[in-house]
Amino acid sequence: MRERIGALILAAGKGTRMRSDAPKVLKTLLGEPMLRYGLAALESLFADRVLTVVGHRAELVAAAFPGQASRFVVQAEQLGTGHALAVALPRLLAAGLTHVLVVNGDAPLVTAESLDRFLDQGLAAGADVAFVSIELPEAGAYGRVVRRDGGVRIVEAKDYDPARDGAVTGEINAGVYLLRLEAVAPFLSQLTNDNKSGEYYITDLVGLAAGAGLSVLAVNRGPDPAYLGINSPRELVVAEEALRRRIVEAHQDAGVVIRAADGVRIGPDVVLAPGVELCGPLELYGATAIAAGATVCSHGVLVDAAIGENVTVHPFCHLEGARVAAGCQVGPYARLRPGAVLEAGARVGNFVEMKKSTLGPGAKAGHLTYLGDATVGAGANIGAGTITCNYDGVHKHKTVIGQRAFIGSNSALVAPVTIGEGALVGAGSVITSDVPDGALALGRGRQVTKTRK
Amino acid sequence: MRERIGALILAAGKGTRMRSDAPKVLKTLLGEPMLRYGLAALESLFADRVLTVVGHRAELVAAAFPGQASRFVVQAEQLGTGHALAVALPRLLAAGLTHVLVVNGDAPLVTAESLDRFLDQGLAAGADVAFVSIELPEAGAYGRVVRRDGGVRIVEAKDYDPARDGAVTGEINAGVYLLRLEAVAPFLSQLTNDNKSGEYYITDLVGLAAGAGLSVLAVNRGPDPAYLGINSPRELVVAEEALRRRIVEAHQDAGVVIRAADGVRIGPDVVLAPGVELCGPLELYGATAIAAGATVCSHGVLVDAAIGENVTVHPFCHLEGARVAAGCQVGPYARLRPGAVLEAGARVGNFVEMKKSTLGPGAKAGHLTYLGDATVGAGANIGAGTITCNYDGVHKHKTVIGQRAFIGSNSALVAPVTIGEGALVGAGSVITSDVPDGALALGRGRQVTKTRK
Amino acid sequence: MRERIGALILAAGKGTRMRSDAPKVLKTLLGEPMLRYGLAALESLFADRVLTVVGHRAELVAAAFPGQASRFVVQAEQLGTGHALAVALPRLLAAGLTHVLVVNGDAPLVTAESLDRFLDQGLAAGADVAFVSIELPEAGAYGRVVRRDGGVRIVEAKDYDPARDGAVTGEINAGVYLLRLEAVAPFLSQLTNDNKSGEYYITDLVGLAAGAGLSVLAVNRGPDPAYLGINSPRELVVAEEALRRRIVEAHQDAGVVIRAADGVRIGPDVVLAPGVELCGPLELYGATAIAAGATVCSHGVLVDAAIGENVTVHPFCHLEGARVAAGCQVGPYARLRPGAVLEAGARVGNFVEMKKSTLGPGAKAGHLTYLGDATVGAGANIGAGTITCNYDGVHKHKTVIGQRAFIGSNSALVAPVTIGEGALVGAGSVITSDVPDGALALGRGRQVTKTRK
Repeated sequence: MRERIGALILAAGKGTRMRSDAPKVLKTLLGEPMLRYGLAALESLFADRVLTVVGHRAELVAAAFPGQASRFVVQAEQLGTGHALAVALPRLLAAGLTHVLVVNGDAPLVTAESLDRFLDQGLAAGADVAFVSIELPEAGAYGRVVRRDGGVRIVEAKDYDPARDGAVTGEINAGVYLLRLEAVAPFLSQLTNDNKSGEYYITDLVGLAAGAGLSVLAVNRGPDPAYLGINSPRELVVAEEALRRRIVEAHQDAGVVIRAADGVRIGPDVVLAPGVELCGPLELYGATAIAAGATVCSHGVLVDAAIGENVTVHPFCHLEGARVAAGCQVGPYARLRPGAVLEAGARVGNFVEMKKSTLGPGAKAGHLTYLGDATVGAGANIGAGTITCNYDGVHKHKTVIGQRAFIGSNSALVAPVTIGEGALVGAGSVITSDVPDGALALGRGRQVTKTRK
Repeated sequence: MRERIGALILAAGKGTRMRSDAPKVLKTLLGEPMLRYGLAALESLFADRVLTVVGHRAELVAAAFPGQASRFVVQAEQLGTGHALAVALPRLLAAGLTHVLVVNGDAPLVTAESLDRFLDQGLAAGADVAFVSIELPEAGAYGRVVRRDGGVRIVEAKDYDPARDGAVTGEINAGVYLLRLEAVAPFLSQLTNDNKSGEYYITDLVGLAAGAGLSVLAVNRGPDPAYLGINSPRELVVAEEALRRRIVEAHQDAGVVIRAADGVRIGPDVVLAPGVELCGPLELYGATAIAAGATVCSHGVLVDAAIGENVTVHPFCHLEGARVAAGCQVGPYARLRPGAVLEAGARVGNFVEMKKSTLGPGAKAGHLTYLGDATVGAGANIGAGTITCNYDGVHKHKTVIGQRAFIGSNSALVAPVTIGEGALVGAGSVITSDVPDGALALGRGRQVTKTRK
Repeated sequence: MRERIGALILAAGKGTRMRSDAPKVLKTLLGEPMLRYGLAALESLFADRVLTVVGHRAELVAAAFPGQASRFVVQAEQLGTGHALAVALPRLLAAGLTHVLVVNGDAPLVTAESLDRFLDQGLAAGADVAFVSIELPEAGAYGRVVRRDGGVRIVEAKDYDPARDGAVTGEINAGVYLLRLEAVAPFLSQLTNDNKSGEYYITDLVGLAAGAGLSVLAVNRGPDPAYLGINSPRELVVAEEALRRRIVEAHQDAGVVIRAADGVRIGPDVVLAPGVELCGPLELYGATAIAAGATVCSHGVLVDAAIGENVTVHPFCHLEGARVAAGCQVGPYARLRPGAVLEAGARVGNFVEMKKSTLGPGAKAGHLTYLGDATVGAGANIGAGTITCNYDGVHKHKTVIGQRAFIGSNSALVAPVTIGEGALVGAGSVITSDVPDGALALGRGRQVTKTRK
């Protein structure tokens, strides 16, 4: 039965209160756009039967989720959540779905477990319309659940009328609905925008269905924080902190040693082997993966970094898109940019930057060095202050350094250039021509020493 | 009526328990001297009718508050708070004031709102002497409020005598007084230093006034933390943390996105546009201002930095007195010192230091570079490892780099020197003479390559 | 009487749940191995009458505690805590001890004060066997204290049988025992490994002694966290955080100004003068000592660093084994490695690394410099981008720079080389020969400037 149920994420809104031009669902939590969280929870339940309604700056959302392109539904005019559902309905029906689980895209704390339980409850009750309500100390800007005259309705905060709707309770709409499509479809055309916001509300379906005698179920989850939505910068960072704790504690439970854990931020897709040692303040984002026996010291920012076994990343390192093989030593103060590769046992040290460059096994670049578009062979030694001059103002060029080559300190290697295996470049040289294997190259002025008066 | 009320800050003490030679009121909270906080609160109520009594190392306090010079009263010998008032009295009377609000200079949590309310209460009661009391679990070193025989007195902790004064209650003196000058002036000469500290206490005015039948009002504020004074390093950092939270939360309420907010320290004069994104650990001090759309990543220390719209400050940056125009990219690991200016769209990257230097629009200095006393034209490119040699051991000299010039990596530009527009300096060069517009300059040794045995 | 009491630390276990190959007692808390904490507490009570039983990878434990070699007892096969005691017994008896205090090596929160009090209680009661029990909300994996039929026993968690032992209470075994050796020795041969773990338990002594009518005392310490043991990565970091707070608060009480204290990590052997100012995030480890008037800014990692009076360590500094004399300025972004010495008033600045090098009084190295195996005289100035080329691929060589010498920016000093007093090296030079006192040396290519089409 589950295979004929799908999901719909409502992600078309601008989020005016976020004070940003970007679509709200692209605001990040722990380095990932908000939308990713709901999507991941739903895909774990429904695989590819998850559609997303996008609208405000839809092209930005699409660019951030390239794999989702075929499952995005564009709501060109953002006329409300009910309108969003109407726009998506043909796609849902065409997919042969009987039910759809509708979730707001701005609720990143939602878990698959919680949604799954709601789904079970809704299906078991044979509900035509089911929704989650939660209880808050203050109803705030959330839609309020009104239970009167034996029925149940959701009334948006702006439209609430105590005379009509009674005293406000703390029971509010969580923005999660299970809809039997055949039952609900006829009501979509009955939605009106005759309200304070001038929008077509999905929430009006509840009252319409109840009024028509259909089976309506409100599942009250109490004060469950998993359903809190994000409508302001403050709510964004509160939710991010809740996610942060959840992720850190899961890694701790799995045997990761996380010191100064309050200052450790780990993205949802980061993979950490048991026994890995981390110390805050530290940020691990994106597809970062850290293998057994590795240690990442404090003051690190790692994005999409692959860290091998028994590596130590010393303090003050910033890695993005770098690959570090087993047994390497990184930093302190190492800056590895995309395409930086350290093969087994290599070392990069203080104030060294690498970009699109490989350090071969056991090679070293210890101090104040820039390696760009360079390939360094096994066991080579790059002296302090070495600069690969990879850019001529128009093009980038490659530097190739052979195995066991020795580059004297403060040298400039003007690319394209090849330094042969076992070659030796004298300190302070500017090297513009290739150096054969085993050769010695010098490129520096002759020293002149004069006595002064 | 308010325009004939002024304020007096008592800031003459040494603060022995602070374990520092500096005057206590110069110890900083969030980068600003303690005295600044009370001064700001009082100036918002009384404009320039705020006098400050200074004493211990008065010259240091004066130097830290140059704009206040004409409103400082020097208490050459620090004989106590009552003596401080006596020293200031002629200035208060000469200013035509009827009342003075006296506040301790070591109470940085005090707010204008709270003082304003106290003022209203004192004036409404027609009090000759009014003071604020608060309630603490333990009276500690604070003066105790004694209410006996229908009267009220303040007894300093050292002088407290249970036989005379009764069991200690938690009601203590907050150190804030509203005094009607005409009523109080006669008592100043009756103060004695016949007490354990050998000091003339302002607190004795309360008992003297009450004993003489004047109108004395004690306004009990309960456990209000706003009146806590700072007498130890521990109290300093506790108060700093309270201020930190107050400031961070105010910015959050105004729409600033502050991630990892527990580690974000923002000075009281920092200006942040709504929608700005910050991530802790982060310190923003002094006159720092950050415009809309900007992001400041973790591990930053910014002092007096002006950050334009849509700028990104990457991790590990330290800016002091720098100006960064719209659309610039800064860091990671950028060090901008006073006089560093980035014009629109400029970029400074990894391990780059700038001092008294300007990067023109779109110019770049990406790696391991020192720019001192340099002007770089629009669109110029400064290669990795470039050093402006601005110091000859005696004088600093200027380097001028024209628009669209290209400085090859690892070059040394020996100032004074001018590189023309569109000129090109070869990698590894030492440039000692000016380079005309569009010219090519090289200054490096010839490469010699030898085969080794 | 106390001089015939000694202590035994049980430190032979592997700690499988720690997810690490290293012995559990070598896992660090605040930079020090776990074992150090219990050892320090016991040595303060018993001086050199403290033996440690080591087993799993004993050679690593021995290497970490070289001073303890003569007091280590090797338990070659780890057959359980009772077996460990049996292995140590001959040493204890040979030392003429009457009693031994046995403590688990994985309980770093234990304090000398608490142990001392237990000792007093056990001796006063004339107990043959005394042990500490604590109360937890959940008994977890701890041994449970069973009080039935007038006796007391300890039953390990795995072996607990409710039918035999009754409902589990929260009273558990803290792993601290006081044993009268003469009384207990006969029971060691009666221990069996007939239990779920197949180990000889020291805890069985309690039941054996009680069964034989000896005097057994269980001292219940309630929920005292000082006795919590470490059996998982999570417990490790929880204990570390408790230690961190304890140490930070002790320094605060002693008058150290610790801002952003939640992010400040201070090792147990660090010495801080009253009035020193620290700001988190910050790590101070090992034998670091900081003298009066010094300030260490945020984002610092100091290990075994000696910081003199009135020094400022600016943000983003990493010091290991460095010695900084009074009045120096360090950083920001300074990297001082072992053997770095700054004499009075010296300065090292942005992106400067020093290793086995001395900066004389008032000497400066401000920017992007590497000093390795160098001695710099008083008042010398090292220009930006200077590199000492100390390594020729085989050997390290020394650079000596005389007093008041001036090294122009971006120079390479090829060691071994001596720059005389007051000598001047031109910017961008490569210096390969000694420069006499007062001489001027240049070593750079001649500039060639060509007009381009």
